[in-house]
Parts: sequence; structure tokens; C-alpha cells
Amino acid sequence: MALKDAKAGTRNEVGIAAVLGILKQSFGERFQTGQSFREQHAHTTTYIPPQLPDGVLFAESAEDVKAAVNACATHKVPVIGFGVGTSLEGQVNAANGGISIDFSRMNRVLEVNPEDLDCTVEPGVTREALNIHLRDTGLFFPIDPGANASIGGMASTRASGTNAVRYGTMKDNVLAVTAVTANGEEIRTARRARKSSAGYDLTRLFVGAEGTLGILTSVTLRLQAIPQKIAGGACAFPSIKAACDAVIMTIQMGIPVARIELLDTVQMRACNAYSKLSYAESPTLFLEFHGTDETVPLQSAAFAEIAAECGGGEFLWTANAEERTKLWKARHDAYWAARALAPGLAALSTDVCVPISRLADCVSETQADIEEHGLLGPIVGHAGDGNFHVLLLFDDKSTEGVAVAEAFVQRLNRRALAMDGTCTGEHGVGQGKMAFLEQELGGAVDLMRQVKQALDPDDIFNPGKIFHHG
Amino acid sequence: MALKDAKAGTRNEVGIAAVLGILKQSFGERFQTGQSFREQHAHTTTYIPPQLPDGVLFAESAEDVKAAVNACATHKVPVIGFGVGTSLEGQVNAANGGISIDFSRMNRVLEVNPEDLDCTVEPGVTREALNIHLRDTGLFFPIDPGANASIGGMASTRASGTNAVRYGTMKDNVLAVTAVTANGEEIRTARRARKSSAGYDLTRLFVGAEGTLGILTSVTLRLQAIPQKIAGGACAFPSIKAACDAVIMTIQMGIPVARIELLDTVQMRACNAYSKLSYAESPTLFLEFHGTDETVPLQSAAFAEIAAECGGGEFLWTANAEERTKLWKARHDAYWAARALAPGLAALSTDVCVPISRLADCVSETQADIEEHGLLGPIVGHAGDGNFHVLLLFDDKSTEGVAVAEAFVQRLNRRALAMDGTCTGEHGVGQGKMAFLEQELGGAVDLMRQVKQALDPDDIFNPGKIFHHG
Repeated sequence: MALKDAKAGTRNEVGIAAVLGILKQSFGERFQTGQSFREQHAHTTTYIPPQLPDGVLFAESAEDVKAAVNACATHKVPVIGFGVGTSLEGQVNAANGGISIDFSRMNRVLEVNPEDLDCTVEPGVTREALNIHLRDTGLFFPIDPGANASIGGMASTRASGTNAVRYGTMKDNVLAVTAVTANGEEIRTARRARKSSAGYDLTRLFVGAEGTLGILTSVTLRLQAIPQKIAGGACAFPSIKAACDAVIMTIQMGIPVARIELLDTVQMRACNAYSKLSYAESPTLFLEFHGTDETVPLQSAAFAEIAAECGGGEFLWTANAEERTKLWKARHDAYWAARALAPGLAALSTDVCVPISRLADCVSETQADIEEHGLLGPIVGHAGDGNFHVLLLFDDKSTEGVAVAEAFVQRLNRRALAMDGTCTGEHGVGQGKMAFLEQELGGAVDLMRQVKQALDPDDIFNPGKIFHHG
Repeated sequence: MALKDAKAGTRNEVGIAAVLGILKQSFGERFQTGQSFREQHAHTTTYIPPQLPDGVLFAESAEDVKAAVNACATHKVPVIGFGVGTSLEGQVNAANGGISIDFSRMNRVLEVNPEDLDCTVEPGVTREALNIHLRDTGLFFPIDPGANASIGGMASTRASGTNAVRYGTMKDNVLAVTAVTANGEEIRTARRARKSSAGYDLTRLFVGAEGTLGILTSVTLRLQAIPQKIAGGACAFPSIKAACDAVIMTIQMGIPVARIELLDTVQMRACNAYSKLSYAESPTLFLEFHGTDETVPLQSAAFAEIAAECGGGEFLWTANAEERTKLWKARHDAYWAARALAPGLAALSTDVCVPISRLADCVSETQADIEEHGLLGPIVGHAGDGNFHVLLLFDDKSTEGVAVAEAFVQRLNRRALAMDGTCTGEHGVGQGKMAFLEQELGGAVDLMRQVKQALDPDDIFNPGKIFHHG
């Protein structure tokens, strides 16, 4: 996709050469400059074209990170953190070249404090690895963005996903980070207390900064008790509006749903075909309830009443783990089912988020837009948060196909912004949403620029992301 | 108290005179420079001596705020927001003189969106006024710091209070703010979507900044459904350790307590005397449960089991509103009960917060400290967060009394920091905790300074708070 914001900036060739020399000398085999390593560390997961770093450091400690940042700071060379590369808006691209710091070897769980429901991990720990590690403690880390992302990447993009409606996003679940800043020193943003009003909220400043203010070296996370009982459910509705009304009533009544996901008719059709299911091909809510033997049936019954009131079909639910997996299969396979609608086409996963009172309007208008333009774009939403994704299937090989996709994304974002929504609920800005961020927040983006200029005056940390300078 | 951090800075006499002239001209009677107005807008609620502003503007709109900030920016004169003056660490003192902006006339609820569970208010709306306004919507704003504080002040100090354990702090409940920044323009930090990953988290940067980065002109808040059923309970324990063990188990089991407050023996004795009650004079937990007719008894029963396991006495609980008020009377009157222990003495309310695994240690060591030094200081804790307050009663008329109190606060903070805690869970830094913030976060405070320098290069916004410059 000929994305304007992903154009290459100015490369500091002299500086890059110097840093390559220093890091080769210091790290030997742990610093790689081969083409395949460089390709693996550029953007690969979606439509934004890759921009390769000049070298990849496989960091093993905060000391390694400090050494790399110091070299890059001295020579004013870009430095970009890399978790597992699942970001969707070009966050790991090296727009001006530079060094990628790969965190796959910084994957230790440093401490778990079961009494405090917290843990501290290195940035390369993936969420699945963390939950395996925690299994015997009775605790889990709830944030689930779908992909098996790294905790450092999730913190940096302010990730969330299906159960943010119950457990919040990364902003709510990161207690503190350590980060190497532009002067090459490691700072810690907060202590391990569950709350604090001690000065500026630097933790939340790093969460969502997409690596533009420093490189994370550890993340302290809040954990949750594994619910005694988990149940799943699904319910079809005659319209997007009816489904969204059920969502709003559920939230207004304070039913603590753990997940409440909306799949539109096109997506349901794709799921039936792909996973050989026989769901009604109409807008469907998938739910999950977390609680106890006593409370989960109460939650389910309360939702069933709401669903009936909103014209929903039969509410299927189960507390049996195997049956729940089966019931949720459509939702779990949604991405691959959608891709299978048009195996020859590329997929562009884009997200917006609106106040939930506007979700039905925003989804319906987007469906009409898709139909009017003859596009193919199933919709899946984290309905409890007003957040939804369109997986637009488009021809990335033709100029026209790319232009059509780009125009769609623009209309989608303009629509969400007109409804007091945001251009991204959970994917971040990266390179893909820079223009929309300006439309969304106007003068506030100047404050972001001032913060960036203050903390990273030479623009070494992940340059060319979130906003343009100057 | 001869607090070193509260010393006056340099006054810009020429600039102040110019701004007084401009604001008198523009605002007439709405701008006051009389001694009594100035005294009412300096710090009054605790031990830190007052430092008076030179004039008080009774702002009625964001335009008024812009005019005042523009005048102050032009002449490099301090400007300090003032809600109702309940902050505890000298936040509203005019260390270098300047202008206080009083928000008591900016007290409109601008909009309520029941379907989205949010509202937008002017900064001068108090939390009680907001909840009265919301009564018919079935929604409420949960944060309760005790005092009937203004929403602008609560946002600025990152306030929390008794039910943060369930509903979070101001950081979790502010969706967006508008603020007038150093260039005199009003910015908006976020849209009304429930979540966003669009750029730096400016909302969280303003929440807790204590008015040092700009002046808030509106705050958008998340609201909660009023629970169908509320129950209260109280249970005495043989020791602080036993009570804290019950708290930890409650949190670990995921029982969604709405409040879980710890009162120590001295405080319970004070409450019995003051409110003519007959509670056991031993460490006591006061609880509140929010839910439905079905879930509240389940929560209460689950806690009762834990309490018994930890050696607690009888767990009294009730879902009757009147009885609940009676049961909670001791907690509600705790402050006045404590003051009544020594009516001739001044009271210093100070707070720290530690990981909950260390709460019992921190409280017990603090009790031993109090005893060892012959002090009087009842302890009340928001136990579910590891946050507790000491209300130190001391003689503020004698140099020795002040020195004794100051030394106690230093030991308390050192103790909390040694346990990976924070020097303030909810009061903020203001002037009172500046030295401890440096001890707590070290190099991270330099980042705060860089942010402040970038957003407020002339240091006009509430100077002399949170950290020293240069």
C-alpha cells in the first residue's frame, strides 16, 4: 500500500556505520546484519510495506539495551524495540534505518508476588508464556489481544482485546516499567504499590508511547485471580442495533461480563463456512462470564433476559470447558475464516472505537459503505468497549485496489471521529494512523511533540511513528 | 510546621503588578485581591503554612481561564487552580505569589450520557453535587476521597479513597480532560471512546499533575451503575496481621469488595469514645459489598469464611441501609473521633501505600514507632490497596512538637519506600512530599522535570510543587 506516512526519512549513514561497528565489536554473533534477520524485524503483519533496520541486536539484559542505546544516542541513530512483531500499524518499521533490539532472549519472568497479585517480567515474555508460568499460582494475566504478543509490545501499543470490558487495557494493568531513556540510563516509573499519586504518571506515559520515548527493560503487571467458574455463551440478533442495545443494557445493569464480542452477518457466514458450523447468519454476540458456581448462572440468566427483551434468538450458554471452546470456535477462528472468504486477496486489519451509544450506527454505516463500494470486509467488535475491527480484503497488487482500501480506511476513521470516537482503540498509531491522530486531537498532538522533543531531543527512539515532527 | 519545601520562592513583583491590573480591568468584581479572599485560597487544611496568592479570579468559563493564563503567561506570573481547598500537601499554596483561579462558579454538569456511562463536568463540580445530579439516571460516580472535593481537584491530585479497591482511582475514571496550556490555548486530551491507543496518554499526564502542566477546564468521567444491593459489614481481628491476611485472601479469591477499610486499635478506641459505640477495641475491618440481591449475600458469606479462618470475631453485616450507616458510623466519624483524642493538638494527615503483602508490617512498625516516641496517631487504611493514613496529633505551636512530627513523617516514608511502596497513595506530593518523591523514583523525577520544562517553560503553572527545578 502506497502509504504516505510510511515513506523513508533521512538516513544518517555515517552514524549508522559507526553504530554497526560498535555493536558488532561488542556483541559478535548476537548482533546480526544479514538480510533475512533485517527482513524479519521489519513490519510484516499487514499492508504497510516493510522498512528494514540495518542491524538486529539480540539483547539479553538491561545492560545490553543500555549499551545499544548509548551507541545510538552518541551517533544519533534510530533504535527500535521488537517483541514478536504482531503490531498492525507499522510500529516496528525502521523508517530511517537504524538498530532493532530483539527481546526474544529477554523472556524471563523476574518475580511473581502472589499475595500482591503482581509480577515483573522482561519485555520479551509473551502473554501465553506468562500465563503458563502463572498456572500454579491461581492467578492469570487477563489481557488478550488475540495474537501471542510480547508484554513489552503490548505495553508499548496500549493493547487490550476481548476481555478489556472486564479487566481494562494495558494502561490499567501495568503497575510500573523500567526503561532506558535517551541519556542511556535506566529509570523506574513507579514502585510496586497498587496505587500512587506520587508525581506525573510516567508509567502511563510509556504505555502506548510505541517505543518513541525509551526502550522498556521490564514491565510490572497486575494479575487477577483465575475465576472459579467460566461460562461461554452466544446469541443471534435480528440486527446490529438489537445486538448493540443488548450490550448497552448489559453494561448499564453492571453485569460483569468478561467478554462480549459482536460478529456481523458477513463474519458469521465466513465462520460457518470455514469452521463448518451452523450458526444463524445474522449479527451475533459471543459472551464469557467469570465468577463462581453461584454467580455465573446469575450473570448468564440476567443476560438471557436482556437478550430476549432486545429480540435476540435463543441464548446458548455452557459452563463446560469443552463445550465453551466449541461455542466460541466461530469467534476464535474469525480471522482465518475471514481470510478464507477471498484467499487471493490481502487483508487489512483496522480498528476504531466509539462511545457504545454510537456503535450500532458506526458499524451499520460501515457495512453500508462496504456494500456501496463493492468491498469485502467482515466486522468483529469488542462491543462492550465500542471497539470494532474491519478485516478489509483487498488487492494489494494493483494500484487501484490499494487506493480503494486507503479511501475506505479514511472514510471509516472520519466516521468514527465524527461520533466522538478514536482512530484506534487498541492497534496504536504507528505509521498507519498518523493523519487521523491529528484530526482526532488537534492541538493536543503538539503537546505530544513537546514531550517527545523533551525526552528524546535527537529523535532516536522509533522515529517516524505516531506523529510527524516540526 | 517549618517545612523546608514550603519556603517562598522568588516573586516577580513587576509581572504580578501588571497581571493584577489586567485582571482587575477585565473582570471587575470577579477578581478579588482582599486579604480574606487571598487567605481563603491558600493552604488551610493541614500543617503546611499558608502562602497567599496575590489575587483570586472567580472564573465562569474556559474563556475566563484562557484570559487569566494568557495574562500570566505574558508576564510570567504563577497561576494556580483552586477547587474547594481540601488538598492535604500544600497543593494550592502560592509559593511565589500569583493568581488563584477559583472554580466554584464553574460548577456545571455539561453533559451526561447514560448509555455510555459517562459525563462531562466543569472542574468546580463537587463529587456530592455530581452524584445528586446523577441520581435519576441509575448511575453514580464512585470515587470517594472522604472530603466533598471538586472533580478538578480530585483529577489533579489523582485522588481515590475508600472504594478504589473496586472502582479504581481518578486515573481509571477520567476519560478525557480539556486544559488551557502555556500558550493560552485549550486542548482536549482524548475523545469520549471508552478506550484508545491513539498517541501519548495525555489524560493520565494531567491526572495527578497537580495543576503544574495546565489548568483543567472540563473533565470527562466514567460512571458506574448504582448497585441493586449494597451491604455493609464489620469484623474485629486479634491483630493487624490477622486483619491484613483476611484482606489478602479476599483479594486473591477475587471477591469484588467495594470497600475494605482497616482501623487500628487506637482508632477504634477513639471511635467508641466519640461516637458512643461499643466495638471491640482491636484492629477492625469495615466492608462494603455492591451487587444484586443474589450476589451480595454470597460475597458476605465468602468473606465471613475468610474472616473466621484468620481468627476474626463475629462478622456483622447488613443489607439494610439504616443499619449499614450505623455499622459504618465508626469509620465515617474516624477523623473527628481521632481529633477528639487531643482537642488541643493540631492534626497532620499523611498517607503512604505499600504492596498489600507488606501492609501488616508497615502498619505494625508504624504503631511501634508511634508508641516508642510517645506520639498519638490513630491509623485508618484503605487496606485492599495497601494504602493507610496516620492522623498524627502534635503540638504545632512549639518548635519541638513540629520537629517531632516532621521526624515521624520522615521515618514513615522511609519505611514505606523500603517496602517498595510509595510516599503517597492518594494525597499527592504538593509541597509536603517533595523530598520523598526524589527518594522514591530517583532519575525518573528528572523525566518529570523535562516534561514540565517542555510544557511550561516559564514555570507559571503552580510553581514549587511536586519537584524542585534545575
